[in-house]
Amino acid sequence: MSTGHAPVLRLVPRPAEAPPPAAALMEPAGLSDRYAAVRGHTEQLAAPLTEADQCVQSMPDASPTKWHRAHTSWFFETFLLRPHLEGYQPFDPLFAYLFNSYYEQAGPRHARVHRGLLTRPSAAAVGDYRAHVDAGMARLLAGGLAPEVAGLVELGLQHEQQHQELLITDLLHAFSFHPMKPALAPDWQEPPALGGRMLKPLEGGITRIGALETGFAFDNERPCHDVLVAPFRIADGLVTNAEWLEFIADGGYRQPLLWMSEGWGAAQAAGWQTPEYWQREADDAPWQLFTPGGLKPLDPAAPVRHVSWYEADAFARWRGKRLPTEAEWETAARREQLADAGRFVWEWTGCAYRPYPGFRTAEGAVGEYNGKFMINTMVLRGGSLATPPGHARLTYRNFFHPDKRWQFTGLRLAAEA
Amino acid sequence: MSTGHAPVLRLVPRPAEAPPPAAALMEPAGLSDRYAAVRGHTEQLAAPLTEADQCVQSMPDASPTKWHRAHTSWFFETFLLRPHLEGYQPFDPLFAYLFNSYYEQAGPRHARVHRGLLTRPSAAAVGDYRAHVDAGMARLLAGGLAPEVAGLVELGLQHEQQHQELLITDLLHAFSFHPMKPALAPDWQEPPALGGRMLKPLEGGITRIGALETGFAFDNERPCHDVLVAPFRIADGLVTNAEWLEFIADGGYRQPLLWMSEGWGAAQAAGWQTPEYWQREADDAPWQLFTPGGLKPLDPAAPVRHVSWYEADAFARWRGKRLPTEAEWETAARREQLADAGRFVWEWTGCAYRPYPGFRTAEGAVGEYNGKFMINTMVLRGGSLATPPGHARLTYRNFFHPDKRWQFTGLRLAAEA
Amino acid sequence: MSTGHAPVLRLVPRPAEAPPPAAALMEPAGLSDRYAAVRGHTEQLAAPLTEADQCVQSMPDASPTKWHRAHTSWFFETFLLRPHLEGYQPFDPLFAYLFNSYYEQAGPRHARVHRGLLTRPSAAAVGDYRAHVDAGMARLLAGGLAPEVAGLVELGLQHEQQHQELLITDLLHAFSFHPMKPALAPDWQEPPALGGRMLKPLEGGITRIGALETGFAFDNERPCHDVLVAPFRIADGLVTNAEWLEFIADGGYRQPLLWMSEGWGAAQAAGWQTPEYWQREADDAPWQLFTPGGLKPLDPAAPVRHVSWYEADAFARWRGKRLPTEAEWETAARREQLADAGRFVWEWTGCAYRPYPGFRTAEGAVGEYNGKFMINTMVLRGGSLATPPGHARLTYRNFFHPDKRWQFTGLRLAAEA
Amino acid sequence: MSTGHAPVLRLVPRPAEAPPPAAALMEPAGLSDRYAAVRGHTEQLAAPLTEADQCVQSMPDASPTKWHRAHTSWFFETFLLRPHLEGYQPFDPLFAYLFNSYYEQAGPRHARVHRGLLTRPSAAAVGDYRAHVDAGMARLLAGGLAPEVAGLVELGLQHEQQHQELLITDLLHAFSFHPMKPALAPDWQEPPALGGRMLKPLEGGITRIGALETGFAFDNERPCHDVLVAPFRIADGLVTNAEWLEFIADGGYRQPLLWMSEGWGAAQAAGWQTPEYWQREADDAPWQLFTPGGLKPLDPAAPVRHVSWYEADAFARWRGKRLPTEAEWETAARREQLADAGRFVWEWTGCAYRPYPGFRTAEGAVGEYNGKFMINTMVLRGGSLATPPGHARLTYRNFFHPDKRWQFTGLRLAAEA
Repeated sequence: MSTGHAPVLRLVPRPAEAPPPAAALMEPAGLSDRYAAVRGHTEQLAAPLTEADQCVQSMPDASPTKWHRAHTSWFFETFLLRPHLEGYQPFDPLFAYLFNSYYEQAGPRHARVHRGLLTRPSAAAVGDYRAHVDAGMARLLAGGLAPEVAGLVELGLQHEQQHQELLITDLLHAFSFHPMKPALAPDWQEPPALGGRMLKPLEGGITRIGALETGFAFDNERPCHDVLVAPFRIADGLVTNAEWLEFIADGGYRQPLLWMSEGWGAAQAAGWQTPEYWQREADDAPWQLFTPGGLKPLDPAAPVRHVSWYEADAFARWRGKRLPTEAEWETAARREQLADAGRFVWEWTGCAYRPYPGFRTAEGAVGEYNGKFMINTMVLRGGSLATPPGHARLTYRNFFHPDKRWQFTGLRLAAEA
Repeated sequence: MSTGHAPVLRLVPRPAEAPPPAAALMEPAGLSDRYAAVRGHTEQLAAPLTEADQCVQSMPDASPTKWHRAHTSWFFETFLLRPHLEGYQPFDPLFAYLFNSYYEQAGPRHARVHRGLLTRPSAAAVGDYRAHVDAGMARLLAGGLAPEVAGLVELGLQHEQQHQELLITDLLHAFSFHPMKPALAPDWQEPPALGGRMLKPLEGGITRIGALETGFAFDNERPCHDVLVAPFRIADGLVTNAEWLEFIADGGYRQPLLWMSEGWGAAQAAGWQTPEYWQREADDAPWQLFTPGGLKPLDPAAPVRHVSWYEADAFARWRGKRLPTEAEWETAARREQLADAGRFVWEWTGCAYRPYPGFRTAEGAVGEYNGKFMINTMVLRGGSLATPPGHARLTYRNFFHPDKRWQFTGLRLAAEA
Repeated sequence: MSTGHAPVLRLVPRPAEAPPPAAALMEPAGLSDRYAAVRGHTEQLAAPLTEADQCVQSMPDASPTKWHRAHTSWFFETFLLRPHLEGYQPFDPLFAYLFNSYYEQAGPRHARVHRGLLTRPSAAAVGDYRAHVDAGMARLLAGGLAPEVAGLVELGLQHEQQHQELLITDLLHAFSFHPMKPALAPDWQEPPALGGRMLKPLEGGITRIGALETGFAFDNERPCHDVLVAPFRIADGLVTNAEWLEFIADGGYRQPLLWMSEGWGAAQAAGWQTPEYWQREADDAPWQLFTPGGLKPLDPAAPVRHVSWYEADAFARWRGKRLPTEAEWETAARREQLADAGRFVWEWTGCAYRPYPGFRTAEGAVGEYNGKFMINTMVLRGGSLATPPGHARLTYRNFFHPDKRWQFTGLRLAAEA
Repeated sequence: MSTGHAPVLRLVPRPAEAPPPAAALMEPAGLSDRYAAVRGHTEQLAAPLTEADQCVQSMPDASPTKWHRAHTSWFFETFLLRPHLEGYQPFDPLFAYLFNSYYEQAGPRHARVHRGLLTRPSAAAVGDYRAHVDAGMARLLAGGLAPEVAGLVELGLQHEQQHQELLITDLLHAFSFHPMKPALAPDWQEPPALGGRMLKPLEGGITRIGALETGFAFDNERPCHDVLVAPFRIADGLVTNAEWLEFIADGGYRQPLLWMSEGWGAAQAAGWQTPEYWQREADDAPWQLFTPGGLKPLDPAAPVRHVSWYEADAFARWRGKRLPTEAEWETAARREQLADAGRFVWEWTGCAYRPYPGFRTAEGAVGEYNGKFMINTMVLRGGSLATPPGHARLTYRNFFHPDKRWQFTGLRLAAEA
């Protein structure tokens, strides 16, 4: 075969017996070692990619691999090296324009929709940029760091881990346009799922959610605060492909009454009849799923993924259930009731993404990190097969618009007690 | 002047000393009398309008007056007369197609964006339709009604009151395209505002919000449930035009950091530099506001209106404050702390419109009333100068998308204790 | 039936034995009488319409009846009364803004897409405006007119006749959105067609086309000039509905090779499967056509209408023929070879609408009449059932974009000799 | 500088004293030699480009370099090797899907807008494809060719030369999004212009235009036919940047009366204030032009380029002139009256792109070559600095939509005698 669909990504497999999310808090570790590990992982992901693979952008929501590599370096350069490392020489003054994502306070920037047009700098030049930043960071880390500077380093690493996941989902989206659906990582295997379909009851009461002030967390996870939760039930397992096939067979995509009005409109406009990345060769052929390992037979036992919030919400209604709230999810996770949490898919919740009571943004441009997206988006909890191990937390609040499907997104069911 | 900008609307003035919203619950009254009063009020609003005024539709969000008059009648015909009045003959079988708004279970319907193309039936024919339905309802109301049928009658009346407000806001929008900005009600006067700018502290604790099972309330106000509210402060008055002028003068519309990212995008795309319906003849001329009484000098002391949620949110951030939550608003309103609530503007809250815990939709098509819009919209509380007296309640949950400005929408500020 | 689909238009029937177009040149006549006749005809067309019928605008290409009535009056006021009638008092200074169509030199104007929002002035007020202009014109016409002023009066009348046709086609379009497809003129009858399918040969040579300098013609018909035409064949009759049904049955709407690339794109995007205004209740039900007389059984013998240039071009290719050029059409028409020309449909030609050699625009704003539309449009020749009798000429050049279908547009075939 | 703006293109400079276009007809040459030369030139153009440069697509109108390289090879494979070389094995069956441009008869194809997402096959794999096709063609050319097959080979070479020009213009467009405006060919120099501003008179009469049946020409250049041309005047030189600066200074981009109505709309919507690729750092800074050699000071004496038909038409009107017709241009070119023709820019004419009388498309899929684009486009004549030497002819008809600006397009003026 001449098209040369070579392996392109080295995904780290999630352990079959993952530690429950409650334990996934950041390990204390030497910051230099951690810096090297995280930065190295990005380069490992990108290493097998060609120059063109690293440049392509398949939609405005997605970014090129090369851009992810450069932008995460720009983050360290802008928020650590320029203000805190004496004598630091920026690698290229143009990069502040090219690789700023959305930080208004950090100056003007290249249009998001045109990121894929940046054939220059080359992937190798971005590699040089990364090395230049890494050298600067090594100097910075060698000295003693004030706590707030160390906190910014940790923020930069967490930020880079977020982009590691996006790098994978964005590339999967770009490759999905190819008629051959090339594999990102040919050896990649679907991990086995553990959870069942049973809804377990949990007691209600005043419960504390959100991140403590100690340890790393994004600003949107704070402040820790009390909420009153009514007794509820929540599934120990994620909704599976087998269940989704039942939903399809029962007309789930043809019954407007199951859907939010705008969700139904989105589904009709886009012609949704299955989750994203499902295909089959004929109406009576078996379903296939485009995975990081390429096209694979759809595994009925695996958790469904690449569903929008609209679909997740409609599915739950069809089952006479609902999505859990953030507080319910976090409560159940703390009690270790949620099998497979953080191992397959980010889980849509029923909660709009809004600030916690008392939410404060940081001073300066990093204050733009999360707060300005707290509208028209829905919260997801958990973590996915593309989330770097150790990145997610019990209190982690991911968020996407309710019509997005290119992330590894799924659901678990909940209900009143 | 030949264009004949005759009076077109008879708005009922809100009393200068309105009863606090806590007292605005529905009065028990003879249902027949109440039916006659509500239905008659709609016709009073429409009476001065020409055939063309009643037909026009200025955007997909808005509907023609004639359509409001017919749709509210269709509601009674569809949910009361057809199922519950023996021998009822529908006025015209076509009307079920023309005047269904969005009820999937009630069959196919005329496209929303084309409502303004319905020059037929005439306004007079719609009057005949209303009389036909009224005659049927008189027969129905003359007999004894089962409680659930009486509940549907009340729902129909509340529904019609909602459309009375929309009739006014939609017509104001249509008239705003006319270079002369014709008055809907030439004698209409801006009522005086009472509240100040002070934020008053309130205690927190577990508080019950939402509507009891007795008395009328929309499904989205139920079930009544407990929430935990932290101590907070809330303004006794609404934000005024004078304050908004300060916001403008301080660059409020030019500072992206004050805005949600999508709000900033919406503001730039639409070129917002003031609230909707503000204009002035030159940069140094005084501001005018398009009101139901036509173009009027902007009153600095009056509550600002026709602001989107995005603008309200940006304003609050500029002031170092925030919008109140639903629970805070309802708590403060019960304690009669909110001057001017319900008299000028619907007040944007910081809460996304989502179902209350345990929310249940009604059986049948009326179950589509509210639930399917609980995404991408934000809750407003209170009531406006266009809300029919007696319609709003303390527990009332209005909702619009965060970019909408054609309603009478404003804000009051809140903050942590 | 309560919707009251009353007669709304009084279309003047075209004589069954129409004079051939060669004879359709403007008759010399008293200008005052002619003014009265043309202006009166507009009012006759509008008389049966309701206030709402006159206000509605169904797409940006179309204009409300009321607007046509006012705009044609504005034309006389702007180009005749203001500059040439001493002491003339404009009826309302606002009208220069509201009823200017596209004349840049005549000042700013109301946005075309919002013409349907002008519920004010009323239809009656527009009637007053027309009477005011007519009184002024009576005074002007009572004096001796300089030839160039008389020419402007004639231009104003021809302009009004063009709008008489648009008034009908625009209203038909608006009514087509109504599920009942109300009749514009219930008594209207399809006239009988005379032509056949035979292609007659004509000799080539140098032939003169375009309008002489004497007599009225639009600027785009001049200058008269010589062109070299090769021998050709041209059909004596128009393509009929029966032939179009064959085209459909043979997959004409499913064969991209028959179509221009952009035509195929337009057809797919809009889902064209028949000409505009065709419908049937089921796949095996007979076709109906929405006519000025309402929905009628499709007459196989009648000339097809409401086809775009793209469809006409594809049909001709399917038949191994082509559309005639302007010069061919005009040559054949002068030789009285074209049956039914000017009686049913404007006939698409193969010629893009571009200026004749030596084309000159008039001085002043009337110079904007035709010239600035000479791009992306195709020429039509002849005249239609909605063209006022006596309006069209052999040299008349009508033009529309190749995707437009709401006019009475059809075709006749031609071929090389 | 780390971004590494290395040379990327090797443009063949046009000779300063180019042969007049009349002499630019195809030289008879050994077809194998010619095949090798043309194919080799494509690879020379692409050789300095990176993998990412070759993959990028900056708008739907443009295609990636890699795609141009593969598509031109697909053309030989599809129309020569598959039908005419016994035993030919297609390189990769998928390529028929990926690299078909618009030939409906050649089967389904990859969506045009997604060509830039094809990171696979690699540029090297496309090189292998080209070598495979070249080997097949060598075998085919070694045998005796029937005339119609030889004609298809020549068509394939002419087709490839067209794509050589597009490769350059498409890449220039992609690079224009980079803030550094990288040079395609750093050594590239603007050639000196020869023509003046004088309009020379030419006699009229019956003149023959179009290509003879002997020698290569595209189908759209035939049949050769007589047209009647009135006496006219035509400039010996092209309109220059200096003249365009006068146009700008005189408000050419602010005067709607100079423009076609749709041209004015396009100019306003896109914010045109200069030709494409002009920029300056401040309002009082000198103009720069993005050229194949990178950003250069704008040369006042050079012919203006990157202007749309709308701009060219407005400019001519501003000067009281017009664009020449195709027949005028071809007549003048045959008489060697047109300095600089074919050396700088394709010259917009006043003629819409429509078939010549008696135009016939070829049998089979190559019949889709030109005919289906003969609507909504305008003809250009001559040739540009990016046209491969020897490719253009006196009778050559290029065509683009009137709003396109990314090609090397300019104009010369004409007028009545």
